[in-house]
Amino acid sequence: MYDSVKGFRDFYPEEMQARRWAMDTLEDVAQRYGFREIGTPAVEPTEMYVDKSGEEIVEELYSFEDKGGREVALTPELTPTVARMFVAKQQELSKPIKWVSTRPFWRYEEPQQGRFREFYQTNVDIFGSAEPTADAEILAVAVDMLTDLGLTAEDFEIRVSHRDILSGVLESFGADVDVPEAIRAVDKRAKVDHDDYLDALVEAGLNYGQADKFDEMLQIDAQEIETLADLTGSEDVRAATDNLQAVLDAAEDFGVRDHLTVSLTTARGLDYYTGVVFECFDSTGEVSRSVFGGGRYDDLIEGFGGQPTPAVGFAPGHATLQLLCQRAGVWPAEELSTDYYVLQVGDTRPTAARIARDLRERGHVVESDVADRSFGAQMGYADGINAETVVIVGEQDLENDEVTLKEMDDGEQISVPLSEFPGDHDRPTFEDFAE
Amino acid sequence: MYDSVKGFRDFYPEEMQARRWAMDTLEDVAQRYGFREIGTPAVEPTEMYVDKSGEEIVEELYSFEDKGGREVALTPELTPTVARMFVAKQQELSKPIKWVSTRPFWRYEEPQQGRFREFYQTNVDIFGSAEPTADAEILAVAVDMLTDLGLTAEDFEIRVSHRDILSGVLESFGADVDVPEAIRAVDKRAKVDHDDYLDALVEAGLNYGQADKFDEMLQIDAQEIETLADLTGSEDVRAATDNLQAVLDAAEDFGVRDHLTVSLTTARGLDYYTGVVFECFDSTGEVSRSVFGGGRYDDLIEGFGGQPTPAVGFAPGHATLQLLCQRAGVWPAEELSTDYYVLQVGDTRPTAARIARDLRERGHVVESDVADRSFGAQMGYADGINAETVVIVGEQDLENDEVTLKEMDDGEQISVPLSEFPGDHDRPTFEDFAE
Repeated sequence: MYDSVKGFRDFYPEEMQARRWAMDTLEDVAQRYGFREIGTPAVEPTEMYVDKSGEEIVEELYSFEDKGGREVALTPELTPTVARMFVAKQQELSKPIKWVSTRPFWRYEEPQQGRFREFYQTNVDIFGSAEPTADAEILAVAVDMLTDLGLTAEDFEIRVSHRDILSGVLESFGADVDVPEAIRAVDKRAKVDHDDYLDALVEAGLNYGQADKFDEMLQIDAQEIETLADLTGSEDVRAATDNLQAVLDAAEDFGVRDHLTVSLTTARGLDYYTGVVFECFDSTGEVSRSVFGGGRYDDLIEGFGGQPTPAVGFAPGHATLQLLCQRAGVWPAEELSTDYYVLQVGDTRPTAARIARDLRERGHVVESDVADRSFGAQMGYADGINAETVVIVGEQDLENDEVTLKEMDDGEQISVPLSEFPGDHDRPTFEDFAE
Repeated sequence: MYDSVKGFRDFYPEEMQARRWAMDTLEDVAQRYGFREIGTPAVEPTEMYVDKSGEEIVEELYSFEDKGGREVALTPELTPTVARMFVAKQQELSKPIKWVSTRPFWRYEEPQQGRFREFYQTNVDIFGSAEPTADAEILAVAVDMLTDLGLTAEDFEIRVSHRDILSGVLESFGADVDVPEAIRAVDKRAKVDHDDYLDALVEAGLNYGQADKFDEMLQIDAQEIETLADLTGSEDVRAATDNLQAVLDAAEDFGVRDHLTVSLTTARGLDYYTGVVFECFDSTGEVSRSVFGGGRYDDLIEGFGGQPTPAVGFAPGHATLQLLCQRAGVWPAEELSTDYYVLQVGDTRPTAARIARDLRERGHVVESDVADRSFGAQMGYADGINAETVVIVGEQDLENDEVTLKEMDDGEQISVPLSEFPGDHDRPTFEDFAE
């Protein structure tokens, strides 16, 4: 007997069915918005990640030398891959490009609640538009995904921020500030002691007075954000607050503004974001981590050797999303569902097989006996797979050219002429034949 | 600019849409038969493959030591994983178990037509039934998958054989025959010179006379197969021919017998098969390799430390299946499809966004401008994504409370009152509003 590898999970059918529902829900939303599915490799050159994130990323990678001497890694995220694919065909692709995909990724990290070494994400990206409408469409897709999962405004909030506001305000304190480091400090703000947070800002080049003032500015009311330009005297900040406002206006048009909260303390840890950034949180705080996040990354494609190309996207992870759905009570029951079980009593396989085939042609999930079991064993199995309707095909019934239809929820059953089953009925049940 | 790793492919949306159609078609068939989706890891302990296939398998694996010192491999096939999962829960799982999944696998092999280092398979397996009905259900699923892809009896044939007939006949020649080696020779029969094939049989312990006689027996007519028991005087052969006949009888009940050809020269290379085996071939021979194969493997679960558990399954690979579909002319056009493009002229985003939302709620694929483009650029884009209907939301039209509906195939267009669009129509087109 073998064990699976630590941090890797097996999904048996009951759980998989619920997960598939969640994945399909997210994919369906993206596809209705015109995002197109792409297929991407599980293995990429390691240098792609080192170039983007530095040599220390290798510690977190499943990286190895393949049998041809190539340094390769299991993909820890999709962004470098889509950037590579975009650059490879940037001339022929008509912009904007809207791509979606759902698949596993791999990181060598310590497993914890909602975090595994193999994890699934749905990546959604737009390439080739710098317009606020593109940012807003990404936010609308995110909101629609959550509401299609059954979540409401009371379950989640999406906190929206803007990298250029943060960096503009930071730069207004003086040229010596290490902006990326300060932004990483903001990203960790909620997770560390306030004093440690201020220390980190000082580490990044502010003095303590400036750190306090900066933190005060981050907590400004959404309505007051436009005052930051005057407070700092920075035209960069003005352009950024205008851009944020334009994104919010577009989100209003898209019908999702109510789900968004402006929150400048939301920063996103990754360096490559350039404009609007956002994170989704459980409104109750029970799921304490950010559920997912995303934002604009206008410089990445150029960094991958492509023409300068604005981009915006996000990537909900399915493990955290599942925690939120479970907390909110919208995660489906993890149980099998089956439309029909066609039960054979005696040597009735030709008729049972014909009936099963007819029902399958109508699109139903239909099982029948493949193990030569008794009536009782078949009924037990039908119950175990939550069959809604059992069609009993018995030798005696067949002598009368009949079959018996039995509803498993209430036990109602009725004899039906064989020639009328399934007949014209799309989903024949007891009701269709009872008088 | 980076290159992808050799043998790994990127799928852009046009090709991916066709591939997704094929994957969904296969999954849908399996699910209608009550096969349940499972989710499985990309990485497993290397020893699982070495124990099953011997140390030489490592040459073909993407295997490496992870950062915790574990010897792991990218999964080259699913069977060991499903065996591991079955054994882990064999007590609680109610038999028979019917599992399906579609996902990539990885082998370090030289890429060639229809063969890549990353390749996709749909695995379909039944555990816990030794009955011929189970073998026949697997064959029925295989046939239904192919016909649902649009293939007909003229496009493919499924050649059915039986390991126990082959081994029983071989054993009837004497106890010294190396049965697995002889079966591997049969598996290569069509790919090598006839003399080399006979040499390989002799290598396995037959003399040349026996090799000739054995090969003659393999080519016996389907109707005559039952004579093999008398010819060899072997009760094992009689049991096996009876079993094969029972599987064919069940396939007749399932409505798929016509697609099956009995062909004892079909052997399947892998050692672990134990009963019925089969391979699907292109009837025209244009796709020269076997499209896919499968069969019964009753000993594997016990070999993985489980209770003795009969099993039968198959795993169509999507690359070869695509070659067959393309050869037969049923592979879909690799192009995007879009129901609506909502075109904005002037500052009409609030109305355009409302219309797009209404259409998406009806389940349609709807794009709208996210890049502030001109009328002409939007029309060009709508054409590029093969939008069927364009809804033009113009400032002037809106002053008259109207939008314009334009069908892209014939250019027909009509003004529609804003209040009636989309109205009660599920899929509103020109026709719905023309008098």
